[in-house]
Amino acid sequence: MSDSPADLVITGCIALVHDDQERITFEEDATIVVRDGVIESVTGGPTGGPGIEAADHIDARGQVAMPGLINCHTHAPMVTLRGVAEDVQTDEWFNDYVWPIESNLTEEDVELGARLACAEMIRGGVTTFADHYFSMDAVAAVVAEAGIRAHLGEAFFSSQGPAGREKSLQFALDHRGKSGGRITTALAPHAPYTVDGADLAATAELAREHQLPIHIHASENRDQAEVSLERHGVTPIEVLQQTGILDSDVLIAHGTGILDRDLPVLASAKGRVAVATAPRGYLKFGWPTTTPVRALREIGIDVGLATDGAASNNSLDVWESMALTALIQKSTTRDPRWLTSRQALHHATLQSARAVGLGETIGSLAPGRRADIILVDLAGPHTQPVHDVAATLVHSAHSSDVRTTIVDGRVLMRDRELLTIDVAAVVAEMGERMPALLDRSHGRRIQDYNT
Amino acid sequence: MSDSPADLVITGCIALVHDDQERITFEEDATIVVRDGVIESVTGGPTGGPGIEAADHIDARGQVAMPGLINCHTHAPMVTLRGVAEDVQTDEWFNDYVWPIESNLTEEDVELGARLACAEMIRGGVTTFADHYFSMDAVAAVVAEAGIRAHLGEAFFSSQGPAGREKSLQFALDHRGKSGGRITTALAPHAPYTVDGADLAATAELAREHQLPIHIHASENRDQAEVSLERHGVTPIEVLQQTGILDSDVLIAHGTGILDRDLPVLASAKGRVAVATAPRGYLKFGWPTTTPVRALREIGIDVGLATDGAASNNSLDVWESMALTALIQKSTTRDPRWLTSRQALHHATLQSARAVGLGETIGSLAPGRRADIILVDLAGPHTQPVHDVAATLVHSAHSSDVRTTIVDGRVLMRDRELLTIDVAAVVAEMGERMPALLDRSHGRRIQDYNT
Repeated sequence: MSDSPADLVITGCIALVHDDQERITFEEDATIVVRDGVIESVTGGPTGGPGIEAADHIDARGQVAMPGLINCHTHAPMVTLRGVAEDVQTDEWFNDYVWPIESNLTEEDVELGARLACAEMIRGGVTTFADHYFSMDAVAAVVAEAGIRAHLGEAFFSSQGPAGREKSLQFALDHRGKSGGRITTALAPHAPYTVDGADLAATAELAREHQLPIHIHASENRDQAEVSLERHGVTPIEVLQQTGILDSDVLIAHGTGILDRDLPVLASAKGRVAVATAPRGYLKFGWPTTTPVRALREIGIDVGLATDGAASNNSLDVWESMALTALIQKSTTRDPRWLTSRQALHHATLQSARAVGLGETIGSLAPGRRADIILVDLAGPHTQPVHDVAATLVHSAHSSDVRTTIVDGRVLMRDRELLTIDVAAVVAEMGERMPALLDRSHGRRIQDYNT
Repeated sequence: MSDSPADLVITGCIALVHDDQERITFEEDATIVVRDGVIESVTGGPTGGPGIEAADHIDARGQVAMPGLINCHTHAPMVTLRGVAEDVQTDEWFNDYVWPIESNLTEEDVELGARLACAEMIRGGVTTFADHYFSMDAVAAVVAEAGIRAHLGEAFFSSQGPAGREKSLQFALDHRGKSGGRITTALAPHAPYTVDGADLAATAELAREHQLPIHIHASENRDQAEVSLERHGVTPIEVLQQTGILDSDVLIAHGTGILDRDLPVLASAKGRVAVATAPRGYLKFGWPTTTPVRALREIGIDVGLATDGAASNNSLDVWESMALTALIQKSTTRDPRWLTSRQALHHATLQSARAVGLGETIGSLAPGRRADIILVDLAGPHTQPVHDVAATLVHSAHSSDVRTTIVDGRVLMRDRELLTIDVAAVVAEMGERMPALLDRSHGRRIQDYNT
């Protein structure tokens, strides 16, 4: 403890904390002290004695303080296309809408989209997002100005030739550790069905050489797994193994097509590999399966929560992903006792933090961790009475109950007011770009979807 | 048109309206005039000319005006038990938690619960709810004071003897048409597994004699259908037919156990029978099926949206039911093209209105209908940009985006502020009741769950 005033003190809250077995408990009437962007202390019970001196004080009575949510896989700038391709099949979604429109995408579109996305996420209690897109310099610039934390990767296809991979590497090297450490980076090959084996192997080599993690879509759905087996005799997960991708730290998006034969492969990469689940889109596309969370947990693989892009998910609402993950896992395993609210919160906190490579940095309210904190108001009629704080958070509260969002000790939203982004200005500018962006008359697309 | 000032005029909104084929369209820059609790006109396009004189004016630019949501099946006072019985199987939920606790229930508990529930629903844009519970006099009193619309039924089991049925009838007769017509009533036998055939037949007879509809749980899940077949050789739906229940107007809650053989039975009651779906709880209990909405629509049966009680659903959020119905129907039919956003809105509006027997009274913004209107703000970053208003409403907006809730022309919530209910006072009073209510040491329960 320093003698100088702290930067921020939060008092009177219910603090979600993890014990040394990673079990979630709630400290009543807690006080959280933040200094230099770091959590200095979390203490439960009436503080008694004199108040703690701090430059800023938040009275959080009636609110839960918890680690900020982490969106483990998204394409933030795609908020621009929210609602553009509705009620269509996966292949139509790619080939008839998203990839033709993305061939019009300018750096300005990406910047505007990223800004709107960060506004949505900060308002929804997301303090970190893992992004996988194009023109990522623009996204990094928005992250710098918005104050959010991000794990960024420049996506590439083999159809771009070696230049795609090289650009992804350059981005990862240029931006890692930027914005005072708020930005971390990854290599971002799109998927085994769009990046060939040689390119994946070269990517794996770069990852090892530069100590970079990899963020990739794989076995997104059952179709992709089956087509891969037919064409190559191996599953997409086995492709990741054969090409050396699984020898690095790797974040796999979706994995709803993960088969039983993939489990030992993933188990052998335990500690390096994590899966991000974004269940809303799987339902919306009518996919036959969801991420096999239970099977992955049984072999010790972390499963982080995600939203995917808003062009398929329609929101960047990780809170909804948390609730849906609990519901869909109960439903698909036909076991209401499994994926309890505390398990859902464990996915949302430590597992998500580890999935984006920040397992020692964020994901829990503990001394020494970065101060990424959200305050959730439980006073609304829809969250009362509170018999079980974990259940209230997962099954009754919504993203709109987040009142305050703090990243690295800086308040980015206070009492629902965004402090770093002007939403109306972004929306107005975006509106002007729309006609050019949405034009599909040219017949081009950036890539074909043909798993 | 009268020459005297209207009671309320809403200007500048996007109005959700139905055409004569019940297709949903959106009128831009619409003006809605309300007089004597009724919608007098809905006109699109710039009004030009002089403004309409009205006692109250709401400038709703940037907001969608749509029919208030209808919760077609709930047990409103059970909000008191929100989060009490988590992560358990259906039989444990009933036998170990809910039915023991409900044996402690006082009229005061029901009143407090109903008041909190009405607060939650009004804040979530629900203007009508169909309630199926005990001590319904208390619920009716809360409906009167809160200003919401309700379709109420006093629940009964055969274990109560004929007195249960008689009380249900008395309630329905005493309260029908009360609160200026905002209250309608139904007979409310609990379910075919708790109300025996003779009792159901007598109920059907009362329904005919007194021209009352019936609101009942039936074939809630697949287990119930299978047990009914084993024990009685008929499905729960066939029981409803054999006992004459299907000869009256009947609202069936859940129906996730409806089998193919039930479809012709239901088809023969088309126009009288509707089903209420509350998909969140089916997922949470890990039930193997959901309401077969597509099969029901194919035979012309209306499916209304519902939440069930908050002890299983954890909220009374019909907005969430709308989104989940779209997602789960796409998922279970494996057809992303089906249950489009417009179809979801049709379920939420006209189908739900018909399900609660108010198909000519509410459910659309049309001249002559009661003025049950909600205003939904689309300015948030999570609902921008708007490429497709229907998709924005169903897949991006949340209940918390409802800014204003109007029932019978009376504003019950304005700019998120509840005008008829003091939530903090209800919560405080409820807290005092909790120890007595939650006591399960007595070993009693109001009924056994044994399908």
